[in-house]
Amino acid sequence: MYGPGKTPAQIAAIVRALLAHNTGPVLVTRVDAEAARAVLAEVPGGRYSPGARLLVWRPPPVSAFTVAVAAAGTSDGPVAEEALEVATAIGLAVDAVTDVGVAGIHRLLAETGRLREADAVIVVAGMEGALASAVGGLVACPVIAVPTSTGYGAGLEGVTALLAMHASCAAGITVVNIDSGFGAAMAAFRLAQVLRRRP
Amino acid sequence: MYGPGKTPAQIAAIVRALLAHNTGPVLVTRVDAEAARAVLAEVPGGRYSPGARLLVWRPPPVSAFTVAVAAAGTSDGPVAEEALEVATAIGLAVDAVTDVGVAGIHRLLAETGRLREADAVIVVAGMEGALASAVGGLVACPVIAVPTSTGYGAGLEGVTALLAMHASCAAGITVVNIDSGFGAAMAAFRLAQVLRRRP
Amino acid sequence: MYGPGKTPAQIAAIVRALLAHNTGPVLVTRVDAEAARAVLAEVPGGRYSPGARLLVWRPPPVSAFTVAVAAAGTSDGPVAEEALEVATAIGLAVDAVTDVGVAGIHRLLAETGRLREADAVIVVAGMEGALASAVGGLVACPVIAVPTSTGYGAGLEGVTALLAMHASCAAGITVVNIDSGFGAAMAAFRLAQVLRRRP
Amino acid sequence: MYGPGKTPAQIAAIVRALLAHNTGPVLVTRVDAEAARAVLAEVPGGRYSPGARLLVWRPPPVSAFTVAVAAAGTSDGPVAEEALEVATAIGLAVDAVTDVGVAGIHRLLAETGRLREADAVIVVAGMEGALASAVGGLVACPVIAVPTSTGYGAGLEGVTALLAMHASCAAGITVVNIDSGFGAAMAAFRLAQVLRRRP
Amino acid sequence: MYGPGKTPAQIAAIVRALLAHNTGPVLVTRVDAEAARAVLAEVPGGRYSPGARLLVWRPPPVSAFTVAVAAAGTSDGPVAEEALEVATAIGLAVDAVTDVGVAGIHRLLAETGRLREADAVIVVAGMEGALASAVGGLVACPVIAVPTSTGYGAGLEGVTALLAMHASCAAGITVVNIDSGFGAAMAAFRLAQVLRRRP
Amino acid sequence: MYGPGKTPAQIAAIVRALLAHNTGPVLVTRVDAEAARAVLAEVPGGRYSPGARLLVWRPPPVSAFTVAVAAAGTSDGPVAEEALEVATAIGLAVDAVTDVGVAGIHRLLAETGRLREADAVIVVAGMEGALASAVGGLVACPVIAVPTSTGYGAGLEGVTALLAMHASCAAGITVVNIDSGFGAAMAAFRLAQVLRRRP
Amino acid sequence: MYGPGKTPAQIAAIVRALLAHNTGPVLVTRVDAEAARAVLAEVPGGRYSPGARLLVWRPPPVSAFTVAVAAAGTSDGPVAEEALEVATAIGLAVDAVTDVGVAGIHRLLAETGRLREADAVIVVAGMEGALASAVGGLVACPVIAVPTSTGYGAGLEGVTALLAMHASCAAGITVVNIDSGFGAAMAAFRLAQVLRRRP
Amino acid sequence: MYGPGKTPAQIAAIVRALLAHNTGPVLVTRVDAEAARAVLAEVPGGRYSPGARLLVWRPPPVSAFTVAVAAAGTSDGPVAEEALEVATAIGLAVDAVTDVGVAGIHRLLAETGRLREADAVIVVAGMEGALASAVGGLVACPVIAVPTSTGYGAGLEGVTALLAMHASCAAGITVVNIDSGFGAAMAAFRLAQVLRRRP
Repeated sequence: MYGPGKTPAQIAAIVRALLAHNTGPVLVTRVDAEAARAVLAEVPGGRYSPGARLLVWRPPPVSAFTVAVAAAGTSDGPVAEEALEVATAIGLAVDAVTDVGVAGIHRLLAETGRLREADAVIVVAGMEGALASAVGGLVACPVIAVPTSTGYGAGLEGVTALLAMHASCAAGITVVNIDSGFGAAMAAFRLAQVLRRRP
Repeated sequence: MYGPGKTPAQIAAIVRALLAHNTGPVLVTRVDAEAARAVLAEVPGGRYSPGARLLVWRPPPVSAFTVAVAAAGTSDGPVAEEALEVATAIGLAVDAVTDVGVAGIHRLLAETGRLREADAVIVVAGMEGALASAVGGLVACPVIAVPTSTGYGAGLEGVTALLAMHASCAAGITVVNIDSGFGAAMAAFRLAQVLRRRP
Repeated sequence: MYGPGKTPAQIAAIVRALLAHNTGPVLVTRVDAEAARAVLAEVPGGRYSPGARLLVWRPPPVSAFTVAVAAAGTSDGPVAEEALEVATAIGLAVDAVTDVGVAGIHRLLAETGRLREADAVIVVAGMEGALASAVGGLVACPVIAVPTSTGYGAGLEGVTALLAMHASCAAGITVVNIDSGFGAAMAAFRLAQVLRRRP
Repeated sequence: MYGPGKTPAQIAAIVRALLAHNTGPVLVTRVDAEAARAVLAEVPGGRYSPGARLLVWRPPPVSAFTVAVAAAGTSDGPVAEEALEVATAIGLAVDAVTDVGVAGIHRLLAETGRLREADAVIVVAGMEGALASAVGGLVACPVIAVPTSTGYGAGLEGVTALLAMHASCAAGITVVNIDSGFGAAMAAFRLAQVLRRRP
Repeated sequence: MYGPGKTPAQIAAIVRALLAHNTGPVLVTRVDAEAARAVLAEVPGGRYSPGARLLVWRPPPVSAFTVAVAAAGTSDGPVAEEALEVATAIGLAVDAVTDVGVAGIHRLLAETGRLREADAVIVVAGMEGALASAVGGLVACPVIAVPTSTGYGAGLEGVTALLAMHASCAAGITVVNIDSGFGAAMAAFRLAQVLRRRP
Repeated sequence: MYGPGKTPAQIAAIVRALLAHNTGPVLVTRVDAEAARAVLAEVPGGRYSPGARLLVWRPPPVSAFTVAVAAAGTSDGPVAEEALEVATAIGLAVDAVTDVGVAGIHRLLAETGRLREADAVIVVAGMEGALASAVGGLVACPVIAVPTSTGYGAGLEGVTALLAMHASCAAGITVVNIDSGFGAAMAAFRLAQVLRRRP
Repeated sequence: MYGPGKTPAQIAAIVRALLAHNTGPVLVTRVDAEAARAVLAEVPGGRYSPGARLLVWRPPPVSAFTVAVAAAGTSDGPVAEEALEVATAIGLAVDAVTDVGVAGIHRLLAETGRLREADAVIVVAGMEGALASAVGGLVACPVIAVPTSTGYGAGLEGVTALLAMHASCAAGITVVNIDSGFGAAMAAFRLAQVLRRRP
Repeated sequence: MYGPGKTPAQIAAIVRALLAHNTGPVLVTRVDAEAARAVLAEVPGGRYSPGARLLVWRPPPVSAFTVAVAAAGTSDGPVAEEALEVATAIGLAVDAVTDVGVAGIHRLLAETGRLREADAVIVVAGMEGALASAVGGLVACPVIAVPTSTGYGAGLEGVTALLAMHASCAAGITVVNIDSGFGAAMAAFRLAQVLRRRP
């Protein structure tokens, strides 16, 4: 459920209904701390993650599904953080791989092992959208690229990275919206769901 | 391996090396029919799919992994075809769901069951990039959106659909390049690989 | 009459002339509260709507013409509000249909009845311009789409939604400027005028 | 029903079902002449308009609803033609007002009477998107603007006219896609429907 | 001479040299009030116009050349002001024609006489770039169009008006940069110079 | 009068009326050779310029007004040609200054004398929009810049040159549409008209 | 000297003058084969390179300056060819490094030695503009990036690669126009000139 | 090494390692003053340049390599400053050439001698990207163009200058990102490195 624009009372009512009529996890996204407190007072048993601004009831067990989050540069950090926190809140195991921009290819190659052990890789990169192509060539698992609005001038606030990631020559890369660490984590969650329903 | 720009002899040499030193499937993409014949004459045992322009040796066993390919309108057909053929050639089970544009929501809803049975859904839509959002709200599995260059005027040859799919409000949707049925199928292949390496 | 850039005295003079030489309603748009007070002191009998920033003399009788205003998400709320208030101020009956983004199609379908009872539907949607297509397929009456500048990144401050609504596959949808709840209400007013002059 | 991508047999089957279960007109759009003949052979009683590429069964009675189609210049002619033919095929009365670009304002003013008699005005203009603003100020009825891709250079194949029409200062103008005479006629049809269901 | 980035002392030195070696007017543009005072203390005899931020020595005699400045709406006012003040400072006669947007064509037509008496017309218009086309059709003299960044959404901060003015169907219109009342006045000055050097 | 879209008979009728009720020159633009012959057969006394595609009756006497047309490179030639031919056909004296791109500044400077003798300068430049700035700094008369669609890649088919000419730092330059030699000549004609009506 | 738009006779005259009054090499660019023959008949002693369309007299001695031309994919081949041929024609030593796209990083790394031996590297890459960043991090010498118009959709005919190369995080990379192998070679030539004039 | 996002302790550790295992200069970029002090306290012997925000150990000897930095206007000053300071900090000799915009060509020509003495020229220009073409035609050495975000309207915050510099007709010019004085200096550094390793 998407939280913004609903009162705590409205959220609580919907959550109660969902808990009663379904058996899986119930998530409310983009909830601020104050609203979360109010909702939890009415529907106990949930867990709130302030960084990810998520409310979760019947959280999924910590999954065997591991997402590596690879960030090109330090200015891509906040978006990578969002991806890591949301992924953790929804029960995924995470592995943070930082400072692996393609202008220093050897740092990236040194992390090849960790990247290959992951079930999916989220690549966060702004001025250097190039990282998605490079990682796509190193691993066989799903690669979810997040363009970021870092950089200036020709970066066009993330539009250049978004387009470049789509034009990438590594087959099978997919892309989410600019700065959307949240969207990338949710895409990884969908992957994990597929595994979970298998015998 | 990416085929274009290599001679049949070069391709044959690389394929032979890959078959000798690895155990998994070997793929050569975007190969035309004539080149394929020449390569297969030198390295027998491979299979060529003319529609997908793929050469495959040691094809993966037909997978239990099913990809539904949902197309908004008939003009999106060729791109949906490419996605279906490439997916089949690389061992995925496929299900084609056609004519489910959001301007006729009831046709889409009538297919909810088939969409929910799939392990991943590829959504192919041009003037109506809207379909990705709608499907994203109907299924829990990964959704890979392919914007198409159909339509005219404000569609800007697919750029509008690409941007609209990224701005979608359904969490966890990912997007590939305009008209890239190939890219979407390869992204689905990466998903299937994750399942396959599980016990 | 367009209010900005005129002094209250200038507005009053023009209104007086219009009241004397015509018989229909007289509207002055985008007038702030202070100017409105000054004008009304000179030309009594008018009504001021602060939300819509409209001055109206000889207001049209409340019309039998009903406009439904359907908003995709809560962040589209302020634009939907503007449409509702302006429509009310100019004598239209209104019906607010909220939170019907296409990522939750069933909420939209549950409102089909209300949408079909309206004489026109204003669709307010930002990141999910998709709603215009979906509503266009559900109703036979005029649909006026308002793209909003909500969202971020690939939404390009409303330009993506504007283009996507134009590329929509539902025939007969029309579009107004980004965030222009005012323009949409005025377009509905023009529709109502046509009915009114019929016998 | 949208025709492209369906075989004549498929179209015939759907039309038969629609005629059996509804009472209103049944339209199939964008059908070429050969397919139309095949469909009419199976489902007699329909009428085909080659210019509009429309098949209509149980055509609506010729409506009292009149649409004026005002075109700025001769290069906007084909789009204006499409609007006129589609409007006629779906039962609207039409009035063609040509060569009224704003660079020759007096020609436009000379037609004010005809424009004011219409129930709706479709404005077709390319390099001179300006016409929509001017007409919007002359009439009180709905104005549907169609930007065209005529002109060159800064016209950006219709994108400039589309944006300019949205930025227009005449309140209540709505816009359809570039070159979409079809879309404008369908928007007028929706207006006429509202009138028709009134007592 | 372009003022910004030069110290008062530098400006003074250059002005002294220009006065000594030429006979025409000497202009320094975009000078703030404080710098102007300092320069005038060193090189007396000049005149400073605070609104236009111009310093002028040996001002041209008030010219018989008249520039009409026509502004579409009140939000275009500041740019029209800049054009009027700069034109006055450099010796042109001016005539301000306001509130003549094409959505109210009759107000524009009522001013035809004044526009035709001018030697050049500067048209200032934002959301309604249309005004340039309309004026271009009414007068035979040079028309200099200034797009403004007023409006919102599809106006793209003046870019839409700039492109629309270029795509105008009125032959012989020329355009200057967005919001550049200064540039338009200087273009008119160049016209006046041609007249002046004639016998 | 704008020719396209009118039959020779229509053109002839309008020309006859204009000749009867006015005294100045009568121009019909963009007329092809065949139509011109047909019109001249009905309304003798006119002159046809095939290059400029202009029909002129009562041509203005050859003016003392001289337009220099400066072209940056040879690929800008056809647009410069159009400007020269149209200017000649409407009675202006012309001076063609070629191959003066700013990458060879000395060639430009060598022509300073000719440029300064002109009453107006039309600058035609594509990949090197820079020429407008340079000429603007060399002459005091009106400068009309014509961006051309020559070049490739970053030239964006003339859009880059158009924007660059507007961003020029030389005060008083004005710009016409991409490749519009016609528009530039007509703008010069407007200048000459001002001179002509002076005593 | 830039060849296009000059007759062979004009070229011959200029070349003769340049040979007489200077001592360095004389180059005429973009000359087709027929014109070249005509010019060489008049001014013997020159050398014509058909691939590079260059005429050279007093060719520079083969330089000790080596340019490596690294191309990402085979579709970038023709642009790389142009760079290689032009560079050779103007006396540079060249080294062609092909198929080193970042999606196959190990192929790139395997060529690190050759790249480091060069005095400058020209990087030719389209869909994978990423290569410029990666090479920039591997070598210390000047890197000249050439974006190519290969690819489709989000590649926007080379604009995406051009912007991405500018937004690159590797310091000191410079960029030339889309597909301009010629421009890159000429930039390398300027580098070699600096070395040559050193003692 | 790129400084941002690393703690002083991290920087110090990496610098120590680089000093131990290499022999050339060690640079850390974009370090603020406080962090620089902390790092220098741990790794003495370095030099900090506050303007360039650079830390340098084992600085290169002052080079015989001279970079001229030519700026079009005073508003381009800060970017030119950055280029000059960074170039000085990394051991290059610099020569600042200011106020040489092409609208005042004679000021530029007066500096031809200084420009020709340089080993490379950095051209900094915003609204007048034209300067790069002009300088490119005056010197034979490498020209590195830096578009700046000065100006307004059609300048599109530097994008117009960036595109115009790429479309330039002067062969062999290269371009760096908008406002990137840093990038231009680093590109010049790469040139100087080539000279240095020569015998």
